[in-house]
This record gives sequence, structure tokens and C-alpha cells, in this order.
Amino acid sequence: MGLVVQKYGGSSVADADKIKNVAERIIERKKSGDDVVVIVSAMGKTTNNLLALAREISSNPPKREMDRLISTGELITISLLSMMLNELGYEAISLTGRQAGIITEGSFMKSKIADVKSDNIKKHLDQNKIVVVAGFQGVNDLEEITTLGRGGSDTSAVAIAAKLQCPCEIYTDVDGIYSIDPRLYPDAKKLSQISYEEMMEMAHLGAKVMEPRSVEIAAKYNVPLTVGLNTGNLAGTVIKEYDKGMEQKSITGLSATDNVLLVTINNIPYGENNTANIFTKLAEENVNIDMISQSSPLDNNTVRISFTTNKDDAKAIEKVMDELKNSIDGINYQTEEDLVKVSVIGNGMRDQSGVAANVFKLFADNNIEFLQVTTSEISISYIIDSIDKDKTVNVLAKALGL
Amino acid sequence: MGLVVQKYGGSSVADADKIKNVAERIIERKKSGDDVVVIVSAMGKTTNNLLALAREISSNPPKREMDRLISTGELITISLLSMMLNELGYEAISLTGRQAGIITEGSFMKSKIADVKSDNIKKHLDQNKIVVVAGFQGVNDLEEITTLGRGGSDTSAVAIAAKLQCPCEIYTDVDGIYSIDPRLYPDAKKLSQISYEEMMEMAHLGAKVMEPRSVEIAAKYNVPLTVGLNTGNLAGTVIKEYDKGMEQKSITGLSATDNVLLVTINNIPYGENNTANIFTKLAEENVNIDMISQSSPLDNNTVRISFTTNKDDAKAIEKVMDELKNSIDGINYQTEEDLVKVSVIGNGMRDQSGVAANVFKLFADNNIEFLQVTTSEISISYIIDSIDKDKTVNVLAKALGL
Repeated sequence: MGLVVQKYGGSSVADADKIKNVAERIIERKKSGDDVVVIVSAMGKTTNNLLALAREISSNPPKREMDRLISTGELITISLLSMMLNELGYEAISLTGRQAGIITEGSFMKSKIADVKSDNIKKHLDQNKIVVVAGFQGVNDLEEITTLGRGGSDTSAVAIAAKLQCPCEIYTDVDGIYSIDPRLYPDAKKLSQISYEEMMEMAHLGAKVMEPRSVEIAAKYNVPLTVGLNTGNLAGTVIKEYDKGMEQKSITGLSATDNVLLVTINNIPYGENNTANIFTKLAEENVNIDMISQSSPLDNNTVRISFTTNKDDAKAIEKVMDELKNSIDGINYQTEEDLVKVSVIGNGMRDQSGVAANVFKLFADNNIEFLQVTTSEISISYIIDSIDKDKTVNVLAKALGL
Repeated sequence: MGLVVQKYGGSSVADADKIKNVAERIIERKKSGDDVVVIVSAMGKTTNNLLALAREISSNPPKREMDRLISTGELITISLLSMMLNELGYEAISLTGRQAGIITEGSFMKSKIADVKSDNIKKHLDQNKIVVVAGFQGVNDLEEITTLGRGGSDTSAVAIAAKLQCPCEIYTDVDGIYSIDPRLYPDAKKLSQISYEEMMEMAHLGAKVMEPRSVEIAAKYNVPLTVGLNTGNLAGTVIKEYDKGMEQKSITGLSATDNVLLVTINNIPYGENNTANIFTKLAEENVNIDMISQSSPLDNNTVRISFTTNKDDAKAIEKVMDELKNSIDGINYQTEEDLVKVSVIGNGMRDQSGVAANVFKLFADNNIEFLQVTTSEISISYIIDSIDKDKTVNVLAKALGL
């Protein structure tokens, strides 16, 4: 007899009928002999509706009160799912984040899980109950309710599985992890397996199915993670420790991020900590900087810096640059919009030589220009004109067999 | 500088605009120099919507899960109201029932407040904050969330005021307590004052503005209670200790309850515990019995019992009587529907002689027949035909100056 943590997202529990489907799947698993801990999100658009209510009241509400507000959605789901399981003849009990022992640290609305005190979960499992836990929430050491930010319910599920030392299954409205988002490239292939590292890299680079944080925890505690469809019996994707026999391919996935803004700052006097200053000011305005490149000192002893960010940050950048013009003589900047970042990811890059060269060659052979490029151990990212996006995705997908 | 507990019901906080009105009233009070603890109910129809969701899932859901579900409504209101108060420039903090120290005992969905551990409320008041508390909920000694049943938020407010030894103001969608429900008798007078006892009696006898339980707690701890309109500055009704100068009138109020069912059981063998048996069986079926009268033993050494109940209980009574026919020979019963209970209430009855006689005379003079009558120290209740309801209310209201 095993133990499994299952997580069902908001669209899986959007109404009474869907809650029934989920309950039946859980019971099926329980009947097969496994104990089940279920983590659920808020029903359908509940959290968005609560956020809209808050916006009616304040453009900048206290974050403590926001956490109180948005943590109610999951409380509704856990009670309804427990009722349904009981109605279908299986004893179930709902636990809030606090009751499930989810201890958090950090600020409201983006807390991190510090520990899972799993005694209460274990007690109810020992009594042969199905344990239904509110995702996305916990309590900090002041006993205040906190939420975990984007993808928080996945994080709850993985953290509980890590503590209970059992596998974790994430059920959602897609049937697994694809080499490329199928909305972008309909022929994309579903992956049967992917390594933690590749998944993290894909998530960081824009793949939306999983948030990097939950994959990180899974990797740290070696929790086997399955991502699959919430309704059917289609096999999903297993995310696990990399092993060399896992994939023959050097490149596992491709992701694309729209709305990239490329900012170039010229005439920055070399030395004098100017660069550090600029990035500090940008950070103070919450500009989220992605790829950075800096030129060697030019003849007039200045440097040029380019970085990419989201075009939503254009106003904040304008503000910072206006301030910098007053303190740094001759500094100026340009921005370029309508750009896309395309990344290819694969553990194979680490072991196989020539993978990066091969990708660069594909860009050259197909006359695709890129404005900037960065590499990590297992990925290469290119900034290209958005006009070239579809062509690039198609060329890379076919050539790399994604 | 004083301290006050204010309670706002669900219709007072039904949307963002109404929450703003409530916040402005609270701030006005705070500006006048009083510290304020606010208790709120769930917004508008939130609780009913949650109940409907539960009904979609189960006709008999576990009560623990019901309490988890229906306690979320108040959590939404406290966070939104706190946001609004902060938005308007006043520091406020929301507290759940647990955080406010509301300790309960008894079963789920109808728990009673055992204690209010008010340290946390006091701490925040000391920091000059407006404290916003979720009504209707608490935690029991197993740290489980419980709710307080009908009128639970009023009970929360009065219990907190009792503990903090300060007045309590209940704001609702009526502007006070009337001698008669104005929907029944439009010329009814608003009472400026009423005693705890009269209010309890009126509440028990069908006046819907206040639940008896919260008035009971107010009486026990001598909490001055004001009931008034949630929006305006109209003077409400003060509910307080009875004193003889309070009202000149012997009768303070009149209430009427519809859907009364009169049940008469004949041929019950005298002695042998039969009467006790019958009432035990009725209680087991949750039949709520109101007025009881029993005849002296008749010639055949049997007695006849009449009692009133709500006509919703007709089926349960039929079931009990079918069983009794098997065990008690010759027993039979009749029921009479379309009856109304009209009650008059007044502390004056206790001190002034002839009040009851005067009321009986009004029935006789106006040819109004009654089927049953009971009296308490401060009330008289009559069961009449529903056809006579309007006439009776008018006759009594005019003659008694209500």
C-alpha cells in the first residue's frame, strides 16, 4: 500500500460536477490501495473575482488583508470536495494550510514554505481518511495567514509530498509537458519524461504549465512528479532526476516569450560604479531585468550596456533614465520593441559538444537575425524580431525533432 | 475616550459602495474619540450561495465541513472592510474568530460562545487600530472552526462587548425595534427603549430583528445594546435593564407567528408515563413543540393533550402517531391548520394587575375566538384562526397604544 499526493487546479474543480469527477478519480486511486492526500486550488475564477473586489476598494490594499481575502477560495474548495468524498461513501477531512502544518516565511502574497509539520496529515491518514488540503496558503510564525504567490498550490503539493516522501501528481487542463507550447507549434511532441533541471529551465524561460519553484523543491527532495490531464487516463509527463538514458535528444524543449523590450544605454563612463548604480536604480523601480550584455570600454572610455525586460516596464525605465541624465553627463538610451525571446533547452548540451554550434548554424542557414544571445549550461536564448517568431519556431522544431 | 462594539449585518456590507458607507460611519465614530471594534457578517447573499453550493453536492454534508464552508463569507468581509478603512487613512486590522479569541463549545453549526480571550483585540486597540472581527464564527477546543447558528454575528458582537465591558451597537436594515412588525401593522411605533426581558420575549415570540441568544448574553453581562439603521443617523432602540420609569405602558409589543399547527391527541390512558413518552418520541423526530395544554382525566380515565407546532412538522407528527397507535390502544389525534399565534408582551404585566384581564376583554368585546392561550410572567399568547389575524392585530394595537 502506497501513498500519493495529488493536486487539482482551479479549472478541475470549477463546479459541483467537476468536483464530482475529481472525487471519483481520487476514490479510484484509494480503491487501488493507495492513501491519498489531495491539494486543491480555488474554484475556477474565484481568486480573480476576489482580486477584482479588492481593486474596487483600493489600488494598494495592505498585503496582509489581501492574503486573508484570497486564501478563502481554497477553503471553499476543500470543504466542498470533502463533502463530495463523504457523499460518495469515503471518509475525508479538509485541512486549512494551518491545520496541514504549512509553515511559511517571507512577505505576504509571496511567502515561501519553510516547513511542513505533517503530524496532523499523518494522523488522519492513519485513520484511513482521504486528506484534503488547501493549496496556496500557510501560516507564518506570527500565526498570520500567508499565500505563496503564482503556482502556489503546486508548491504546497510538492512540499507535502517531499515531507511525506511520496510521489506527487499534478493534474491540470493539459495532458503533460510538451517540447513546445502546442498553441505555438501544434505538432509539438508530448514528453514522457523530462529532468528537473530541464523543466526548471523551461519554466523560467516561459513555459507556463509548471512554476520553477515547485520543480525546484521536487528536485531538492527528489520527489517524482507527474503532470497530467485532470479528467482522463492519458499518460502524463514524469519529471525526475536526469539520467543519461532518459532522452537521446540533445534538445528537449523550446519556449518563446513575447513582449520583450531591448534597452541600450550609451556613453556610460567606464569604472566609477556607474553600471552597478544603474542596475540598483532599476531594481528600486522593480524593473525585471533578464538578459544583459556589456561592451568593452570604447575609445572615449565609456561602455554601452544592453538588457532585455518586459515592455510593461518601459515607463519605469524612462523615469530612471531621466534621473540618470542629471547625474551622468552625456548618457543616453534607445529602446526596441516587438521582440521575442526564443530559447532551446536540453540536458544534452552539457554532455554533447557541438549542440550550441548546431543551433547557431540553423539561425544562419535560415537568415534569422538575432539581436542578443545568452547561454546557460542547458539552454540558449535568442532575442529576435517578432516577425521572425513563427519561422524560427518552425525551423528549430523540425530540425531538432521537438 | 470610550470604547464601542459595532456590528454591521450582511445587507450593510453587500458591495464595495456599502462597505465604504460603513467604513465612513466607523471613522466618524473613531474621530469622535471612541475606540471601535467592528463585527461584520458575510456580504449580502454570500452565505446562502455557499449553502446552495453545498446542497448541490450533498443533502446531508458533514457539519464540520459545512462550518468550514460557511465561515469563509465573513473572512471576505473583514479583509475588504479593513482594506477600505486603511484606504480612507485609518489603520485597521482584520481578525478571524480564532484570532479574536472566540472560543466555542457545542456542536458544529450551532456552537455557543464559551469565552472570549480578548488579549489580541486589546493589543490592537492599544496600537490605536480599528479592529475588524469576523462574526458568526469561532474555534472549539480542538481548534476546529465552528459557527454560531442564526443571528450568530449579533452573538459575537454582544459577547465581545461583554468581555470588553462596553456598549454594543447592532446596525441593520431597520431603524430599531417596533412595538409590532411594521409589515404587519404599518402604524406601529418605534420604541426608544425596551427591557432585555421584553426583547427576549418578543424575539422568542417571533420578532425577527434580534435573536434571543444575543439579548440573553447582553442581559447577563448588562451590556447596553442599541439597535439602529445601518446608514443614517436616526435614533435606534436601546435595549437595557428594566426600570419602572422606562415605559408607562403595561404592554410594550405585539408579535404574530404564522403557520401554526394545533395537534390534539385523545384517549391517552391517564398515568403510566404515556404523556412523557409521547413528548420524548416527538423530540426524537425534532418536532418543535410550543404551547401545551392537558385536560384533567376524563370519565374513561384518559386525558387529552393539545399542543402547537409549526405546520412543517406535520409529517414527523404523523410518523410518531402511527407508531403510538401500535402501542397505545384507542389513541387518536386531529390537527388544525391555518392558525396564527398572537402574543402581547410587556414588563408592566408583572407589576400592574388587570393587564391580562383587559386583553381577554378585548378578545371578547370584538368576538375574536381563540383556541388556546398561554401566559408567561410578561406575555400572553393566543392561538387564533388566521382569518382573524389582521382584525386582532388592529384591535390590540389601537386599544393598547402600540
